[in-house]
Amino acid sequence: MTDQELGITESKEHNPGEWYAEVVQKAGLADYAPMGGFIVTRPRGYALWERLQDHLDGWFKETGVQNTYFPMFIPESYLEREKDIVDGFDPEVAWVTHGGHDELEERLAVRPTSESIITPFIAEWVRSYRDLPLRVNQWCSVVRWEATETKPFFRTKEFLWQEGHTAHATEESAWDETMTRLEQYERLYEEVMAIPGMTGRKPEHDKFPGADTTTTIEALMPDGKSVQAGTSHYLGTSFAEAFDIEYTDEDETKQTAHTTSWGLSWRALGALIMTHSDDQGLVIPPALAPTQVVVVPIWQADTEEAVKEYAADLAAELDEQFRVELDDRDERNPGFKFNEHELQGVPLRIEIGPNEVEDEAATLVHRPDGESDVAERESITDAVDEALETVYAKLYASAEATLEENIRKAHGRGEILGTLGQHGGYVKTGWCGDEACEAEIKDEIAAEIVMLPLDEDEPPVYDTCGVCGDEATETAYFAKSY
Amino acid sequence: MTDQELGITESKEHNPGEWYAEVVQKAGLADYAPMGGFIVTRPRGYALWERLQDHLDGWFKETGVQNTYFPMFIPESYLEREKDIVDGFDPEVAWVTHGGHDELEERLAVRPTSESIITPFIAEWVRSYRDLPLRVNQWCSVVRWEATETKPFFRTKEFLWQEGHTAHATEESAWDETMTRLEQYERLYEEVMAIPGMTGRKPEHDKFPGADTTTTIEALMPDGKSVQAGTSHYLGTSFAEAFDIEYTDEDETKQTAHTTSWGLSWRALGALIMTHSDDQGLVIPPALAPTQVVVVPIWQADTEEAVKEYAADLAAELDEQFRVELDDRDERNPGFKFNEHELQGVPLRIEIGPNEVEDEAATLVHRPDGESDVAERESITDAVDEALETVYAKLYASAEATLEENIRKAHGRGEILGTLGQHGGYVKTGWCGDEACEAEIKDEIAAEIVMLPLDEDEPPVYDTCGVCGDEATETAYFAKSY
Repeated sequence: MTDQELGITESKEHNPGEWYAEVVQKAGLADYAPMGGFIVTRPRGYALWERLQDHLDGWFKETGVQNTYFPMFIPESYLEREKDIVDGFDPEVAWVTHGGHDELEERLAVRPTSESIITPFIAEWVRSYRDLPLRVNQWCSVVRWEATETKPFFRTKEFLWQEGHTAHATEESAWDETMTRLEQYERLYEEVMAIPGMTGRKPEHDKFPGADTTTTIEALMPDGKSVQAGTSHYLGTSFAEAFDIEYTDEDETKQTAHTTSWGLSWRALGALIMTHSDDQGLVIPPALAPTQVVVVPIWQADTEEAVKEYAADLAAELDEQFRVELDDRDERNPGFKFNEHELQGVPLRIEIGPNEVEDEAATLVHRPDGESDVAERESITDAVDEALETVYAKLYASAEATLEENIRKAHGRGEILGTLGQHGGYVKTGWCGDEACEAEIKDEIAAEIVMLPLDEDEPPVYDTCGVCGDEATETAYFAKSY
Repeated sequence: MTDQELGITESKEHNPGEWYAEVVQKAGLADYAPMGGFIVTRPRGYALWERLQDHLDGWFKETGVQNTYFPMFIPESYLEREKDIVDGFDPEVAWVTHGGHDELEERLAVRPTSESIITPFIAEWVRSYRDLPLRVNQWCSVVRWEATETKPFFRTKEFLWQEGHTAHATEESAWDETMTRLEQYERLYEEVMAIPGMTGRKPEHDKFPGADTTTTIEALMPDGKSVQAGTSHYLGTSFAEAFDIEYTDEDETKQTAHTTSWGLSWRALGALIMTHSDDQGLVIPPALAPTQVVVVPIWQADTEEAVKEYAADLAAELDEQFRVELDDRDERNPGFKFNEHELQGVPLRIEIGPNEVEDEAATLVHRPDGESDVAERESITDAVDEALETVYAKLYASAEATLEENIRKAHGRGEILGTLGQHGGYVKTGWCGDEACEAEIKDEIAAEIVMLPLDEDEPPVYDTCGVCGDEATETAYFAKSY
């Protein structure tokens, strides 16, 4: 392949869709599977998912969540039970109808989400208030048969996620749970992925089916669209009633439990790639990078031995504390290596040439912006630590600036449409609570209300609805979304 | 529930099947799902699987394996491609035929194993000898539609496993890989699960379809049956030829790669539970126990404060190094607690009463055999460390003794059948290599050749075949198996 074929050829600014697909493939994150809607997650992509998992799973466990594994299939009759409370996922379900050569007596749904199989078991396991709160989670894949164009990590028929399901004695406890998980998602985005999130509620008509309240964390992509980055649902008592989660309280009285569910999918990887990467390829924060530091020795024949030895020694020292690769391949020149590591998103490159050897130094180059620093050899570990923190800070600051610049106020149908059309991003306006007012905007420009403030009592940004002019009850955030 | 209902009522010796099912359910490891052949893995069961994963996955990564995720569905035409080399899994496949309300143009198999989807991608990714060896692995679930009675972790239609797939430039490299993974499985059994394994080859007629050689690790269960505890296949060039894994060697010549695959499933959990547990419930080695040490304070009204404080302080100190639970529940008496922790398999119980407080001591009780020791409070961490090592050593020694007592030699149809019938376990005999000789034993007593020695050149244990009397080419290990 030529260098041209190896590198990114599309422009993030002008062709964000094609650019994204190219970064995903050329950085070795994922390939398209033979069936439309499915992808193959390659080692570099899966390593990112594993690190996200490690962080989130650790926080879950610190806060009382236990992992489980439920069957990937759900009998049709179990999905039907849910119909008392929700419309369900029927149109999006993949159905197993045959086992071997025989037709099954009852069709099995490949799980689109697992409330209908997990909740009946929670009902079995809960007897007394002492069993509450009960919190289970599973990391698994789910399938939703949506007929849209495949976009790796953003839109795939099968996707990886975690789904947490909990039961509580009181509304207060269940609501705390809902918020705890939302905050953990926000922490994941901010601390690990270097993406500031906005937390809020979904409007009534866009809640998870059967939920009392759906909370969401939204992240703004550079193309001005919002990504629903994770959701946490307070389900009230509706699922507990449908599936009989009853417990005996301290006074020996039967009570109905309150439940929650919350999920975060590999869409987070999509948001990660989309937010930070550039026309040279993948950019990711150090906490997630499989290789955090690449050491590249640059030599001529007469300096080869000294440079390579110095570089190897430095890499070995850094290896104690960081994920380090020493790239001393003979068959590639430094320029090729730089391009490759930039494409693959290594956050920090250390260049070692004869000058560095002579000066007992090292040249540190930051991936996001090419800024370079010379560090002293003897304090290299501290210098790298600091450089990686700087890389994180740069990524976060850039994403934060984009977000802050792109939350605008507008009032009146024309102004809302004009602002969204010109800038994208979020437009805050007053809202009367009527879905019809959202529809007016949605029909025109495919933007919708992606969230409302978490605090229902927060006074609206305008006294009147930005669309119909009736009294506003809250602030709506309009945006185009993934 | 009464204590009777909480505890194990079946006998391991007399009713091993019922006893096993009871331990699995009452120790909170798994429940039966509504569909036959499926189980729900509960937190205590899943925690065991997570720890097995952590060990094995760590060793995989240290030895060049990268994790990936391939689609859970495989198009029928991809499975068909495999038919050139193998009979395939057709009769055992669960088929997805509908997505939403529409029938699919091509049926999708829920993966029974992933060679047919992974190998074509390896073929895409491999260009030159520099890309080899290429090693990918995935932790996922697979489905095989076998119509047998459900036995949690041993026989389920859906099961969790890891499947590794690698490509190599040479037979030697691929064979090394095959052995590396087999040795890692053996290490997992021995070091982590405290179960001695026997490694060997499967006979020709029992190899993985399409494999050149299937190696296996077999573990002996207390009921005298062998469990195939993990398999590692050297696939030769058959899959590489069928799926075109070609690479350019150092002389720019096209070559066909050699491939391997290797898998270990949650059947390992079945072997773990079955091997060590007893009529009081679950017994597991400390490395896998979610709770390694439970501290139980035992008080009267006048000693409550002192005992509880002493116990809490001790638990806090141990918590620095071990997974510790302080069970100071007021509503349960010590006897109830002891039974519960024994049922759940906590390897070490520490009892703290007024005497321990006065003597600045602690009473340590080993789960496997109830042996108790008094340790000094000031050296409690060392004492617990030593006690946990002793628990591991006891479990291993017991399993090893069972294995050693149950490898017997026999020659002649009558002696083989008699020995297997009376003792179970393994019977070594000479074998001519003819499947018909295995069939004679199998038809009579449902025992089969579970393995041959790894070393094909090892002289047979008898000069003649134990069944037909013709010349023996190797030693066969007959056993009943799971």
